[in-house]
Amino acid sequence: MALRTRLTDMFGIRHPIVLAPMDPAAGGALAAAVSAAGGLGMIGGGYGNREILEAEFAKAGNQRVGCGFITWSMARDPSLLDLALARRPAALMLSFSDPAPFAETVRAAGVPLICQVHNLDHARRALDVGASVIVAQGTDAGGHGLTTRGTLTLVPSVVDLVARERPEILVLAAGGIADGRGIAAALMLGADGVLIGTRFWATQEALIHPAAKARVVAATGDETVRTSVYDIVRNRAWPPEYTGRLMRNRFIETWHGREEELRSLVGAERERVEAADRRGDYEVSNVTVGEAIGLVRDLPPAGELVERLAVEAEVRLASVARHTLAT
Amino acid sequence: MALRTRLTDMFGIRHPIVLAPMDPAAGGALAAAVSAAGGLGMIGGGYGNREILEAEFAKAGNQRVGCGFITWSMARDPSLLDLALARRPAALMLSFSDPAPFAETVRAAGVPLICQVHNLDHARRALDVGASVIVAQGTDAGGHGLTTRGTLTLVPSVVDLVARERPEILVLAAGGIADGRGIAAALMLGADGVLIGTRFWATQEALIHPAAKARVVAATGDETVRTSVYDIVRNRAWPPEYTGRLMRNRFIETWHGREEELRSLVGAERERVEAADRRGDYEVSNVTVGEAIGLVRDLPPAGELVERLAVEAEVRLASVARHTLAT
Ligand SMILES: Cc1cc2nc3c(=O)[nH]c(=O)nc-3n(C[C@H](O)[C@H](O)[C@H](O)COP(=O)(O)O)c2cc1C
Ligand SMILES: Cc1cc2nc3c(=O)[nH]c(=O)nc-3n(C[C@H](O)[C@H](O)[C@H](O)COP(=O)(O)O)c2cc1C
Repeated sequence: MALRTRLTDMFGIRHPIVLAPMDPAAGGALAAAVSAAGGLGMIGGGYGNREILEAEFAKAGNQRVGCGFITWSMARDPSLLDLALARRPAALMLSFSDPAPFAETVRAAGVPLICQVHNLDHARRALDVGASVIVAQGTDAGGHGLTTRGTLTLVPSVVDLVARERPEILVLAAGGIADGRGIAAALMLGADGVLIGTRFWATQEALIHPAAKARVVAATGDETVRTSVYDIVRNRAWPPEYTGRLMRNRFIETWHGREEELRSLVGAERERVEAADRRGDYEVSNVTVGEAIGLVRDLPPAGELVERLAVEAEVRLASVARHTLAT
Repeated sequence: MALRTRLTDMFGIRHPIVLAPMDPAAGGALAAAVSAAGGLGMIGGGYGNREILEAEFAKAGNQRVGCGFITWSMARDPSLLDLALARRPAALMLSFSDPAPFAETVRAAGVPLICQVHNLDHARRALDVGASVIVAQGTDAGGHGLTTRGTLTLVPSVVDLVARERPEILVLAAGGIADGRGIAAALMLGADGVLIGTRFWATQEALIHPAAKARVVAATGDETVRTSVYDIVRNRAWPPEYTGRLMRNRFIETWHGREEELRSLVGAERERVEAADRRGDYEVSNVTVGEAIGLVRDLPPAGELVERLAVEAEVRLASVARHTLAT
């Protein structure tokens, strides 16, 4: 048994599961493990750092992986995009802010363009610039995004828009998917597959401090929040509508709602956060994950997780259809 | 073909679809129409008004319907609960704030207790007080709720909790479900059925001004927001963590973020809102609906809608299972 969708056909993969290009969790080893297990691994190009990007592509070895950028940040040094495209990635993903300035470069390289969107205007823009795949990310997601839409309503809305305007374009669901139930639900909503971040963050290969991973395994899904406090303290120039979803901790309790004051104290607080980062103190430094942590109970190798997710989704689809559809 | 779940078995209904007890949309006619079509209709007891409650139960005639209250408001006059229980409702639903003071009364009347929850603490409390059905409502929902959890992650988290502690208790998904895709997705997440508000709000029978309904049919799902401004202006004593999801309009643009100032001007603004209500001006008065409005394109009779939703869900389940599960 296997799940076959337009996504598995398009990329020649075995499972409709894409690793989110998480900065810094999704390095070459994680991306390669996901691809080797039949999903599609994506290296997190993140804010953009040449040395790290080269090193992580190298770690992916000969596995076919993609790469994703935080668009407004990569825009400060577009040669990073050239570097990624020169590695012939399976796909190039652009998230957060207008993809238009880079879409042509990606297409000219013959690489499928994936655009992550958070509302219908973004989705329309992604169609306009020629994306091959649209990732509809709901506010349940870990990391940056908007509060506008939950995954459960955004996905079918984007599916309907795409079906009307460019039915050949694929739609992936992202935000809150961490087990076979979530994957099966995404397929019911009309998605061609899923993009998963948080669940892969909690694997052996993710480039994350063990103390942070241990927190996530112990947490419930009620323990996250959207905030800008870490973007302020780290001086990240995010467009103001984007917030990050993270685990609540003492730092967020202290500063969330006091953003102006934090701005005036950024220097001292940044040092405190960076020191906390080094010693693995996650009451002060950030654990960037989504509501899906409530469904995370272990830290498996990523390849094993891909297999588990695929089997769970297959079993779920088959058994709900069998037991619920009375004739 | 039909969808059979523990919910349809428990209530002897044909479809695993429950009408949300919306104040003021879900009157007796809407509840009766949903029950007559094979779902479970619930009268919105809302904040609690004896004359209205009696009138709406009367309008439901001999149809078997349930009733739901806003708990903290009904608590000011618990004889309303007695009135509802005297009508032998199919179920009694308590939402928003601790159900404990009333659970025993409901159980003693031999009426199944449904508790609506928004996080895991609420869900644990619902189990403790003896709920027979838990509605897991995500922040995608229309009306009041929390921002803590999206429907896509809350539902499987509550399902897991219930399976561990009281597996005989049922779980319904609520928030953002408006078509067969959403129902099928909810079943994949492990729910025994769905509670639907916004989609039934947009039916012929809903006690809502035609101008408000017309706005919703024309809107996309990006046009809602959570806010407290109408609770302030209407002097509703909601616990502060609850906000309402509504369509964005001029009133919200003016006052959202300026709540303290609004408090000082409440008298004049309330008159303005009430006058707007009477003339159907929804730039000033509120349209209380969820993200699901993006999936609403018409205003059918409620019974027709129940049939449509059920058929859509059945077809979706069967066809995704058939086309996706390659062997
Ligand atoms: C730790 C972390 C870092 C992320 N970094 C990025 C990033 O650099 N670029 C990006 O496009 N998305 C990033 N995301 C968002 C993901 O692409 C994706 O939308 C999200 O993880 C999906 O929700 P989930 O975490 O519930 O699976 C990040 C997410 C997490 C959890
Ligand atoms: C207009 C409106 C009024 C509502 N009033 C109530 C209410 O009085 N009591 C209650 O328990 N829930 C109320 N709700 C919430 C519903 O019970 C339910 O959780 C919600 O409608 C589900 O999300 P959906 O609107 O996306 O279907 C209301 C919802 C709407 C849209």
